[in-house]
Amino acid sequence: MKFELTVLGSSSALPTSTKFPTAQVLNVQERFFLIDCGEGTQIQLRKAKIPFGKINHIFISHLHGDHIFGLYGLLSSFNLLGRKLPLSIYGHSGVEKIIHFYLENFSLTSNYEIRIHKLTKRSFQLIYEDKVTEVFAFPLKHRIPCFGYLFREKPRLLNIRKNAIEKYDLTIKQIKAVKNGEDIITHEGKKILNQSMTEAPYKTRSFAYCSDTAKYKKVASFVKDVDLLYHEATFLEKDKKLARLTLHTTTKEAAEIASEASAGQLLIGHFSTRYKQESELLKEAKEIFPETLIAEDLKRYSIPLIRQKREE
Amino acid sequence: MKFELTVLGSSSALPTSTKFPTAQVLNVQERFFLIDCGEGTQIQLRKAKIPFGKINHIFISHLHGDHIFGLYGLLSSFNLLGRKLPLSIYGHSGVEKIIHFYLENFSLTSNYEIRIHKLTKRSFQLIYEDKVTEVFAFPLKHRIPCFGYLFREKPRLLNIRKNAIEKYDLTIKQIKAVKNGEDIITHEGKKILNQSMTEAPYKTRSFAYCSDTAKYKKVASFVKDVDLLYHEATFLEKDKKLARLTLHTTTKEAAEIASEASAGQLLIGHFSTRYKQESELLKEAKEIFPETLIAEDLKRYSIPLIRQKREE
Repeated sequence: MKFELTVLGSSSALPTSTKFPTAQVLNVQERFFLIDCGEGTQIQLRKAKIPFGKINHIFISHLHGDHIFGLYGLLSSFNLLGRKLPLSIYGHSGVEKIIHFYLENFSLTSNYEIRIHKLTKRSFQLIYEDKVTEVFAFPLKHRIPCFGYLFREKPRLLNIRKNAIEKYDLTIKQIKAVKNGEDIITHEGKKILNQSMTEAPYKTRSFAYCSDTAKYKKVASFVKDVDLLYHEATFLEKDKKLARLTLHTTTKEAAEIASEASAGQLLIGHFSTRYKQESELLKEAKEIFPETLIAEDLKRYSIPLIRQKREE
Repeated sequence: MKFELTVLGSSSALPTSTKFPTAQVLNVQERFFLIDCGEGTQIQLRKAKIPFGKINHIFISHLHGDHIFGLYGLLSSFNLLGRKLPLSIYGHSGVEKIIHFYLENFSLTSNYEIRIHKLTKRSFQLIYEDKVTEVFAFPLKHRIPCFGYLFREKPRLLNIRKNAIEKYDLTIKQIKAVKNGEDIITHEGKKILNQSMTEAPYKTRSFAYCSDTAKYKKVASFVKDVDLLYHEATFLEKDKKLARLTLHTTTKEAAEIASEASAGQLLIGHFSTRYKQESELLKEAKEIFPETLIAEDLKRYSIPLIRQKREE
């Protein structure tokens, strides 16, 4: 029942000898969602021992090279590995042209279908759901169209205790009703209160990804109460002018967004290579939002399962 | 006065957690020639501490992704780093389309000129020269047009001894003549033999790159007497059928080419990921050509300076 982010690449536009360009994988109960795909993503996936075959959805924030130059290599390797399952790619409509160029020039014998989901609306929108997960896209504010993504587990039903099923000899229909919070009446006409048969469900967990973007106030409402917020923080506050000019965020601003959103934790990365001491960036963010962490290549960030409090 | 190859990536089409896709850099007396540019080349260049600004020439063997998917990232980083110097890219004419797609979609503000040198002739041909280096291209035999490259130092003049210049009070014109092997006549009419003023020059050093290719007999003549031959060896001889099918070479065949070419050393790589023990591939090659080495990511292979023997 994992809800775990793996940072594959945490550099800004210029990779270094220890930091790959941007890519992250979110594992939601063994569904693996790839978010951005900077150069070398497939090599980092190998190092992180994430099976290629489990990646069926790729979410692209925007079409700057440091967020997508790993796509061609990954698509090629999927093919070489005999992939048959369709692959969904979500992103700005321009992604279609990039995929088509790949297909025409590098993959005449592709064995799997690539489904492109073009994001056109500049609003908060549900773009994917399965049994346990919902994914929303929302606009960011960068030099070219750019989207953030919110991944959220769907609300869970109540947990029914095994011994209750046996004790009251429940039918399938009754079990469903109990999970939905109802009381039941036994064959003997006795009323059994729901609370005596159930435990509160686990909280739904959530992760939001915001890169690249200038500080954009609306983001705090899009990602309200998120458990883990990744927000780019390319510059220190003293270089705010550069942040304005390039439509990036300062560490202080990222922390302000996390604070306004009442996020559980803030993960910052995409630091300009001008900063040799990452501790400076962390310190600045922590002054405003103490629960801040630094994104590091191949590091994992888990959100534990916690039971909801029972409404009394 | 280095002549040194650095292997940046040595994998075949599928990179692993320890092997990047194909790329190599040859340092000829501080001129850095990049040969192929697989995904992650710029990251490996960083790790190898090779300055980006010193790379002015990129030689592409063929247009399969594992040999070129690092190009877009590298071109972008050149731009971000403020490159002004023109960059020459050599390869099959199809490379033009790939560069144009990059320029149109990812680099609207490129600060430097990209000069594309399209190889069209399927013959041994001089494609570049400077004061100390000559580079030749020659055809290989793969599923799509593919070129090998031979890098060779230009023949050196004789080394004149400093004390000879002082002793005989030589003019610039005389020094040139002596370096070219002539004797001189002093002001007093005395003949001074060339041998008493000079030492034999260093041997010219050479490196050849052959990947990807089926065994192609002509290669041995193209690279005759090369000091270091990199030749792909994707398969063991027992998997010769696969080599035929995919137009790759076996270790035995690579060793035969090295032997026919009277190469100094053979470097093999591009191994299929099916082989878990690289020692097997090395063993098979060494049986035919003992001076065989394995290409390893970030390893350097130097060719030392050796004086030519004096013709008596």
